[in-house]
Amino acid sequence: MNAFSVKGNVLYSTSMDKISAFPHHYLVCEDGICQGIFEKLPEKYKELILYDYGNRLIIPGLTDLHIHAPQFAFRGMGMDLELLDWLDQQAFPEEAKYEEEAYARKAYTIFADALKKSATTRAVIFATRHEKATELLMDLLEDTGLITYVGKINMDQSAPEGLKEPSAADSAFRTFGWMNHISGKYRYTRPILTPRFIPSCSRELLEELRQVRMTYDLPVQSHLSENPEEIELVKNMFPEAKFYGDCYDRYDLFGNRPDGEFKFTGRTVMAHCVYSTDEEAELIRRNGVIVAHCPASNMNLSSGIAPIRKYLDMGIRVGLGSDVAGGQTESMFRAMTDAIQVSKMYWRLVDKKAKPLTFEEAFYMATVGGGWFFGNVGRFEEGYAFDALVLNDERLAHPQQLSLNQRLERFVYLGGDLFGIEAKYVAGRNIV
Amino acid sequence: MNAFSVKGNVLYSTSMDKISAFPHHYLVCEDGICQGIFEKLPEKYKELILYDYGNRLIIPGLTDLHIHAPQFAFRGMGMDLELLDWLDQQAFPEEAKYEEEAYARKAYTIFADALKKSATTRAVIFATRHEKATELLMDLLEDTGLITYVGKINMDQSAPEGLKEPSAADSAFRTFGWMNHISGKYRYTRPILTPRFIPSCSRELLEELRQVRMTYDLPVQSHLSENPEEIELVKNMFPEAKFYGDCYDRYDLFGNRPDGEFKFTGRTVMAHCVYSTDEEAELIRRNGVIVAHCPASNMNLSSGIAPIRKYLDMGIRVGLGSDVAGGQTESMFRAMTDAIQVSKMYWRLVDKKAKPLTFEEAFYMATVGGGWFFGNVGRFEEGYAFDALVLNDERLAHPQQLSLNQRLERFVYLGGDLFGIEAKYVAGRNIV
Repeated sequence: MNAFSVKGNVLYSTSMDKISAFPHHYLVCEDGICQGIFEKLPEKYKELILYDYGNRLIIPGLTDLHIHAPQFAFRGMGMDLELLDWLDQQAFPEEAKYEEEAYARKAYTIFADALKKSATTRAVIFATRHEKATELLMDLLEDTGLITYVGKINMDQSAPEGLKEPSAADSAFRTFGWMNHISGKYRYTRPILTPRFIPSCSRELLEELRQVRMTYDLPVQSHLSENPEEIELVKNMFPEAKFYGDCYDRYDLFGNRPDGEFKFTGRTVMAHCVYSTDEEAELIRRNGVIVAHCPASNMNLSSGIAPIRKYLDMGIRVGLGSDVAGGQTESMFRAMTDAIQVSKMYWRLVDKKAKPLTFEEAFYMATVGGGWFFGNVGRFEEGYAFDALVLNDERLAHPQQLSLNQRLERFVYLGGDLFGIEAKYVAGRNIV
Repeated sequence: MNAFSVKGNVLYSTSMDKISAFPHHYLVCEDGICQGIFEKLPEKYKELILYDYGNRLIIPGLTDLHIHAPQFAFRGMGMDLELLDWLDQQAFPEEAKYEEEAYARKAYTIFADALKKSATTRAVIFATRHEKATELLMDLLEDTGLITYVGKINMDQSAPEGLKEPSAADSAFRTFGWMNHISGKYRYTRPILTPRFIPSCSRELLEELRQVRMTYDLPVQSHLSENPEEIELVKNMFPEAKFYGDCYDRYDLFGNRPDGEFKFTGRTVMAHCVYSTDEEAELIRRNGVIVAHCPASNMNLSSGIAPIRKYLDMGIRVGLGSDVAGGQTESMFRAMTDAIQVSKMYWRLVDKKAKPLTFEEAFYMATVGGGWFFGNVGRFEEGYAFDALVLNDERLAHPQQLSLNQRLERFVYLGGDLFGIEAKYVAGRNIV
């Protein structure tokens, strides 16, 4: 058994509205699992190694529910475009390069290194449609110690020749090949089924992906109702669907139908949901789909603002995504504050009944909210994974006394993940 | 004569729509003034000291048109409030502390140090109403080498006892005292007249401030049309005014009336202008007032989004402000990308005719736009002040070839000012 304790100023969400602070408390980890939080270390743990982080802040690790590894190379560039033009001019040309192994290795090494150093402990990741490059990405991520889901993209239409797959059957065949090749290969890195988005997928492909999902009980990630033009496109392509999300649901790629024949254990995450109708939101809720809210991306690509308050009120699960490179940065701290800021604009400009998100709620979404996709993740409670960030905020001088909650809010707003992550535990392993 | 040249990859706005890139070019500085940009160094400059910055980027310094020095202490904290509540609960209690010199010294030392290290070369700054603490702030800023305007705040109503000034006459008296005391004291630090905002100023005070302005031909800074509740308050307090800005204009505190008796050389900057009516915007234009666009603050305090495209189309001058601590950070890089992002939301949610701001336009506003407040500032052209930032983007690895413009956009979006400012020239002096 691998066990230890850490000491410091611990903060975590004890509810969606409250970040509880535990000054100079102990956390105990056994085999990657949190054994609880203690003001005084219980007798039975006194012999464990203790890592004393003094006056540092200790918070749960953060989950990035939506990030595109191959787009990391052009993050923060070419931002003045809308979604469909941006895909054509930025994303697709870059992703086509991952056919070549040498380029993929160079680019993915940079990505994996950045993600390792970030505040993210767990992530749900899009690769490209290339199964070899995807496996290479998984190899590199496995070495970081992060816990991730990685998806080889499926797309058989509406993309340039060479980037889109030649047929639905070919796409499925390559997905089976990828799944078989990586079987049993990784401890921390898991596959996820990844239809790019509905405009990229023929009905035949969606039917094939249903079969893939049934075969492996895979989790699913995709995009949903991100941009008005995209939604119009989907409407024209899929006149038989009731709404965008229904296109996925018809092929068992949208969470778990309560009345479905097959009970999937693999969960589904849908990124964006900026324009989900009440009917679509209700299906999200009913099928237990989690929403990956990506506020930076939704600003950069002029998509709009997702009605997160409505989703929360409905009981829909919501986590945060950086959506690099629609979002410019992998910083999940930034995703938190962006989520708060856009919710204020939504309240002011769209719906005065949609109360802005609080810091506490954004923090909850980045820890517990997204963590749910991986199981018991995001809290320092017994039985939860021991994912923790040790934060050093000494660089942020201040003249007055600050509470632990104030220190945390300030550190997040000022992007402390860029300079102040002193240790990062993923399931009990300190990886930085 | 103090002269030198620098070499590197130079970028600056040659128009509002274009950032021109000059790879491995020379800039020459004589007595703080740029002598131009050269592909090959002219013979007459060959004897000068050359600072060769290799593959670094060199851009003009950035002007922060609106920042509150005493609020720096609580930046990034207590963000979940609207303007008037935020003033009562956050800003006013903190500002009251600056009565005490020891506290002011501690807090302002932190502020001046941070501003020195930032991407800001010039700033227009609010202090508090305390003339001694304001002078202390000016002393500290003078030592940084930054070029700044600093204002002792005037406020004789709508604030807690102890923070507001006891009377209009007292406020004016103290302002005269402050002006006389600092007369001739500084090279880089200048006073600016600073009525806090209309709700804080009685008619008597505004009349007194008119006299102060006439006496010293001072520039003016204040807040304008930031928040709907604030505007309602002004309407009730000043029923005789045609609109918010008219309250200032009636007292000669709003730029220069073309038909005014007195020709002020001191310019006027108004922060926010989120809700300026067409009539108010027209007065802004006519009187040559510059708008300090503060997008982060307008998000954090749920104020709204300023119609910057409209102002630019009208020919109104616009610069950017961090508005710490309504804005959480002094980073002017962040102000640029925030300006772009909120303009996209404005286009999407408010007015489809208001084309989003481009990166080029945001960069222009942060350099040339705001620089205008200080004279010929913000370009590398002959006769302009030699304000320059040398940027090291080596930390941002990338697998592909990048153009200089791509490197600049990425560096700004990724907050490179937090880690990559290698040199910072203000009127020819390298201050970091």
